[in-house]
Amino acid sequence: MPVETHRIEVSTRGGSQVVDLTDSVRRLVRGSDITDGLANVCVVGSTAGITTTEFEPGLATRDLAAAFERLAPRDGEYLHEQTWHDDNGHSHVCASMLGPSITVPLSRGELVLGTWQQIVLIDFDTRPRQRTIVISLVGDAGAPSA
Amino acid sequence: MPVETHRIEVSTRGGSQVVDLTDSVRRLVRGSDITDGLANVCVVGSTAGITTTEFEPGLATRDLAAAFERLAPRDGEYLHEQTWHDDNGHSHVCASMLGPSITVPLSRGELVLGTWQQIVLIDFDTRPRQRTIVISLVGDAGAPSA
Amino acid sequence: MPVETHRIEVSTRGGSQVVDLTDSVRRLVRGSDITDGLANVCVVGSTAGITTTEFEPGLATRDLAAAFERLAPRDGEYLHEQTWHDDNGHSHVCASMLGPSITVPLSRGELVLGTWQQIVLIDFDTRPRQRTIVISLVGDAGAPSA
Repeated sequence: MPVETHRIEVSTRGGSQVVDLTDSVRRLVRGSDITDGLANVCVVGSTAGITTTEFEPGLATRDLAAAFERLAPRDGEYLHEQTWHDDNGHSHVCASMLGPSITVPLSRGELVLGTWQQIVLIDFDTRPRQRTIVISLVGDAGAPSA
Repeated sequence: MPVETHRIEVSTRGGSQVVDLTDSVRRLVRGSDITDGLANVCVVGSTAGITTTEFEPGLATRDLAAAFERLAPRDGEYLHEQTWHDDNGHSHVCASMLGPSITVPLSRGELVLGTWQQIVLIDFDTRPRQRTIVISLVGDAGAPSA
Repeated sequence: MPVETHRIEVSTRGGSQVVDLTDSVRRLVRGSDITDGLANVCVVGSTAGITTTEFEPGLATRDLAAAFERLAPRDGEYLHEQTWHDDNGHSHVCASMLGPSITVPLSRGELVLGTWQQIVLIDFDTRPRQRTIVISLVGDAGAPSA
């Protein structure tokens, strides 16, 4: 069984909220027969993204949000908002710049991550959402590591 | 056949032009025996990138370009341009920040994307280009989904 | 053998240093039985990232660093630094925005990259580090290319 596709649901508040997904992904990896290969974590939707960070309150509640606010200010002018009478133009811009997914290695049954490196969802939208995250494991059961 | 590598060619104008690749990628996926796994979409070259966005005129023709212009202004000073007597320093910077590829899940014969989430190329160069996009499908034919 | 996981070690200085990894990754690819599929290059840790760029002195020693400095200024205020009495809040922000890994296609025994497109590590930390880079090759030995 070289491929597994899992889905998890996460309730978010938006506003560049950072949500730690590491434990959920790790649980899927440890319950899987796939020990070596790649783990892809992808959010469905165009106003959120996935990356890694040290998940601690400073970065997670302020520093990352402040940088994205510089990149695409919430109160900036967006043609998207004028067209659709919406308020989340900045959310789309931030999500596209961050990207919807990351791919990290699986080796000997574990995610390869640093101690202070967590897999996170950042939800840039302006309202609470129910997010679907797809975790794909692709590889082999017990492949040799060089 | 657990791997397929496809190439498509796209003519671009540059100037942060956003090109929707979703239909092309979806056509390859639907014509493939690989139903579950990963689809990687990668642009060859160092002045363009790949991401997802809601492909609508506001984001595609102005809002994304405006944010990249803040990140790396076209009229800024670039040592790259002084060295090579070139005008695309900002194009390289934007491309490196966005990244050359994304990887999204394949499940039951379909790309897993949101309704308003399209796969796009952003070409940051300063002149028309012919771009090669490589689409790699890696996975299994009819793998079980958890 | 559809999966190989390799590790390389790189000594870095930090300060947005750009390190060309292309030759190291290419050597692993050429020594591998996996000819077609995906190559994922991932840095362990939360203050560095991976992307592609034209590796030439202008971009590598100044232009990329200047753009990241606009995104997350080294002398900015970071709650991360106040909490942990640290000086690398900007390093974490840049690393999360760039992302820890890229995935590029393998085709007929070679990485698919442009002539002026190199795989690079950018180390945003504020001190010398020993970095572990994980290179995962996933695919097939001699798969047909469409």
